[in-house]
Amino acid sequence: MPSIPTLADVCMVPLGTGSPSVSDFVTKIEKKIRESPLKSTLHSAGTTIEGPWDDVMKLIGELHEYSHELGYVRVHTDIRVGTRTDKVQTAEDKVNAVLSKLDQ
Amino acid sequence: MPSIPTLADVCMVPLGTGSPSVSDFVTKIEKKIRESPLKSTLHSAGTTIEGPWDDVMKLIGELHEYSHELGYVRVHTDIRVGTRTDKVQTAEDKVNAVLSKLDQ
Amino acid sequence: MPSIPTLADVCMVPLGTGSPSVSDFVTKIEKKIRESPLKSTLHSAGTTIEGPWDDVMKLIGELHEYSHELGYVRVHTDIRVGTRTDKVQTAEDKVNAVLSKLDQ
Amino acid sequence: MPSIPTLADVCMVPLGTGSPSVSDFVTKIEKKIRESPLKSTLHSAGTTIEGPWDDVMKLIGELHEYSHELGYVRVHTDIRVGTRTDKVQTAEDKVNAVLSKLDQ
Repeated sequence: MPSIPTLADVCMVPLGTGSPSVSDFVTKIEKKIRESPLKSTLHSAGTTIEGPWDDVMKLIGELHEYSHELGYVRVHTDIRVGTRTDKVQTAEDKVNAVLSKLDQ
Repeated sequence: MPSIPTLADVCMVPLGTGSPSVSDFVTKIEKKIRESPLKSTLHSAGTTIEGPWDDVMKLIGELHEYSHELGYVRVHTDIRVGTRTDKVQTAEDKVNAVLSKLDQ
Repeated sequence: MPSIPTLADVCMVPLGTGSPSVSDFVTKIEKKIRESPLKSTLHSAGTTIEGPWDDVMKLIGELHEYSHELGYVRVHTDIRVGTRTDKVQTAEDKVNAVLSKLDQ
Repeated sequence: MPSIPTLADVCMVPLGTGSPSVSDFVTKIEKKIRESPLKSTLHSAGTTIEGPWDDVMKLIGELHEYSHELGYVRVHTDIRVGTRTDKVQTAEDKVNAVLSKLDQ
């Protein structure tokens, strides 16, 4: 499996739940993400997960399987994912680079 | 134009720039977003913008046009957008709902 | 409103529907898209819509409002959208460019 | 690794290439996808790949690594991915379900 450093921003939604509220679902998923050794950052439109490609994608796949175990029949996920070879960059680095340039 | 309350999470990238770094581009876009009257929140994989559908989509279109004026020839954007009729919810509300349930 | 030529690939899902099947929803949305004057192409993960920015985004907003009129309380949409100033390109052009290079 | 049946719609773009055209890049990626044993369908805004979660995500990771080997320094990818437990459904099934309902 590929192990290149990866930043993946993940937005998961359950379909067919009977209620339009998804905060119970998101909370269970977020707990599971925080139990993993991977660094993550929650925001209002998803959670950014950092780590080697295989660990990140294994975790997201496990989140799908976990959702189904919880009884969620269908899960739809959007992932924005980036890799680069010119430098090592964390999610925090990306925000800080923009914030410091905004201050100039 | 539709004016339904909208949460739109926007990730814009310029293509064909010659450099893999996008923080200069993102900073210029972020400045423009902050000059608008719409509420927004920057994170490492995009910016969430809140407001009526037409205002939000007009702003994002203007960001494309502004990018082209700055010399960026091609811009590729990913938007996660949601609307709902059962309640009014801000981006901050969504995060707080999950954080309070995580604490229980 | 911005009127730059735009290619937008749109994936809409309803939340809280009680059934995990979305083909009834997608069919109603697709009918509405085909009644509009904008060119579109259905595929298994969304529909690509072509036209000026304001027309495309107005249509997608109307699709959200139409969904709510039909009783769908919450709709979550992912849009991949691109604009460029170096040439005019349709969705069909993009596929044909790749297919012709694959043949070489 | 999770092996649940997965439909993943993948849109990859290279950053910092010097040219806004991406058809050379997409053609190389598409060739690689077609060399894999996984079923796939090209459209104007991406390629849909079908298979077990681990095979699909391994392939996409390999496409990132392959891009970097080709000299693309940074690659940004958007993935729409779904899993469900109520039935087995291919990408073709999804389109056919909508097309047959449109005809009614």
